[in-house]
Amino acid sequence: MSIAASECLTTNPLLELADLFADKIVQVDQLLKKRAYSVIPALPLVSSHIIESGGKRIRPLLTLAAARLCGYTEGDRDIRLAACIEFLHTATLLHDDVIDESPLRRGKPTAQHIWGNQMSILTGDFLFAKLFELLVEDGALDVLKLMVEASQKIIEGEVLQLGTKAKSFVSKEDYFTIIEAKTAVLFGAALELGALAANASSEQINALRVYAHNIGMAFQLIDDMLDYTADEPVLGKQIGNDFFEGQVTLPIIILYEKIETNPKLLEKLTAVITNLDRSKVDFQWVRGLLIQANVFSVIEKNAYNFAEQAREALSVFKNSSLKKTLIDLTYFVVNRCN
Amino acid sequence: MSIAASECLTTNPLLELADLFADKIVQVDQLLKKRAYSVIPALPLVSSHIIESGGKRIRPLLTLAAARLCGYTEGDRDIRLAACIEFLHTATLLHDDVIDESPLRRGKPTAQHIWGNQMSILTGDFLFAKLFELLVEDGALDVLKLMVEASQKIIEGEVLQLGTKAKSFVSKEDYFTIIEAKTAVLFGAALELGALAANASSEQINALRVYAHNIGMAFQLIDDMLDYTADEPVLGKQIGNDFFEGQVTLPIIILYEKIETNPKLLEKLTAVITNLDRSKVDFQWVRGLLIQANVFSVIEKNAYNFAEQAREALSVFKNSSLKKTLIDLTYFVVNRCN
Repeated sequence: MSIAASECLTTNPLLELADLFADKIVQVDQLLKKRAYSVIPALPLVSSHIIESGGKRIRPLLTLAAARLCGYTEGDRDIRLAACIEFLHTATLLHDDVIDESPLRRGKPTAQHIWGNQMSILTGDFLFAKLFELLVEDGALDVLKLMVEASQKIIEGEVLQLGTKAKSFVSKEDYFTIIEAKTAVLFGAALELGALAANASSEQINALRVYAHNIGMAFQLIDDMLDYTADEPVLGKQIGNDFFEGQVTLPIIILYEKIETNPKLLEKLTAVITNLDRSKVDFQWVRGLLIQANVFSVIEKNAYNFAEQAREALSVFKNSSLKKTLIDLTYFVVNRCN
Repeated sequence: MSIAASECLTTNPLLELADLFADKIVQVDQLLKKRAYSVIPALPLVSSHIIESGGKRIRPLLTLAAARLCGYTEGDRDIRLAACIEFLHTATLLHDDVIDESPLRRGKPTAQHIWGNQMSILTGDFLFAKLFELLVEDGALDVLKLMVEASQKIIEGEVLQLGTKAKSFVSKEDYFTIIEAKTAVLFGAALELGALAANASSEQINALRVYAHNIGMAFQLIDDMLDYTADEPVLGKQIGNDFFEGQVTLPIIILYEKIETNPKLLEKLTAVITNLDRSKVDFQWVRGLLIQANVFSVIEKNAYNFAEQAREALSVFKNSSLKKTLIDLTYFVVNRCN
């Protein structure tokens, strides 16, 4: 059973967004499929594997929601920009799977596992080029600039993360930079793209940027916590992935702070954290320490603060059911169990 | 000794271009170094390894030459676009080294060999993003479109090439598509960028496109031939690389045509070509067949035709010493020994 299961929110506002934009998401999917075409059949074959791999289209939904919230009603620019954010997301996933050598993603074999490093790298490059093809056709330099900056931050975050692997000391600053790059940057770009599609005011754009940053941070904090606390059948995957991959996330960073006056425990923890060969016993031992030191409540408090700031940012928008869904989302990301 | 050593041209017109644009190339190099900066130190570390790895800057020189030929004299747009083409080139090299698992490039350890797949993939992605950062700052959509299309063609060519590995039948059409993507596309983009920097006429742009395509094709045909014929000390690297990597290039394709009436020889050749475990004896045997069947003269004839078409394309430009150097280059690429 999950440590925090009693507090879980099970109604996912993303499903409300998926309902609200069901027609448009179909068009996003059609556009993704159409634009991933190539005369070389191996490319759409591998692209479609990742594009159709059962992702929840969170980022395109955020783009569509932001556009609607900023008053976009006519045209299909929201759909095109929503496809752009999904292309960037899938391109990074393809390269991530090579970098992490992951055999599975969302319970299915990764492209890397099926077709190897070569096709995963090249298909990622291809989708990245396709993203820019769509952006160039759109023709707006502010949109291009946004996506270039987002790409750079995501890559820099991944490199920073590589350098923290199996390290006994990772600063909170580096951790927050890493999770920003991993989640908040793409959420931010998704929402900002929607605002730009709607020619929103700079006040609205800024509000959505703040909302996206904070909800992204809250989301990833909880994600990293769930990797230690979740109920596996509810989570839908094994827990302990970060631990077994040698990723040092906030639970470990806070644990180090909590036990800093206990040199023997510090030494034992460091021996486990700096050794990439980790057993399930090691995981259960670390998990026990985290519970004992009350680390998860610190993380939840951090996540609640981010969620609070996300809600506050939305105050510039007038009330609507869509705004309510986006507010509900801030509660959901911090009180979910999967 | 090289099979064709007696005909070698040793005066490389690229050196004339390097002299002519020495000041500008220094500025291109400075810009590359400046723009490859990141707050994450590992990124400029790996980028500088590939950027400063002793490449001849052929593509930036072509951009600078095209700009000058089209009358560009003031400003630094030629320098910025020359840096763009080198960023695209180096980004593809970083990913190529992961794809080919090559330990060496230009006689030095590859980034992949030193820092591993992860950093090579991410630094390639980073340079690709940096390329688009420069292009977005430049702000011209025609330039962006050109680079997006070039990127796509290069990637498609690489995927096509992957599919031909150790195949006994590769069509000439596929081979020409592959070498176009491998060399001619980037040469074409390099020259077209220069023309666009100079706001050249569509007649001039088209002429440079034709020149670039043909010189690129001639260059790669000879490159693939030298991999069988060159004198190793002159070439500066081992021969037989394509053969040992299982790449089927034009020499093998033509050899198959030449021996099609000899079923026993066909069978033996196919056994060698479809087996990725190849010995030096296999290489010498194939090389002997290629000489016997007079394959290299067919390839030289093909290359001469491309070079001829490249020269013809330049007729729209008035005579100048720079035009002469570009014409000399068409002779050099087909009569070089390294």
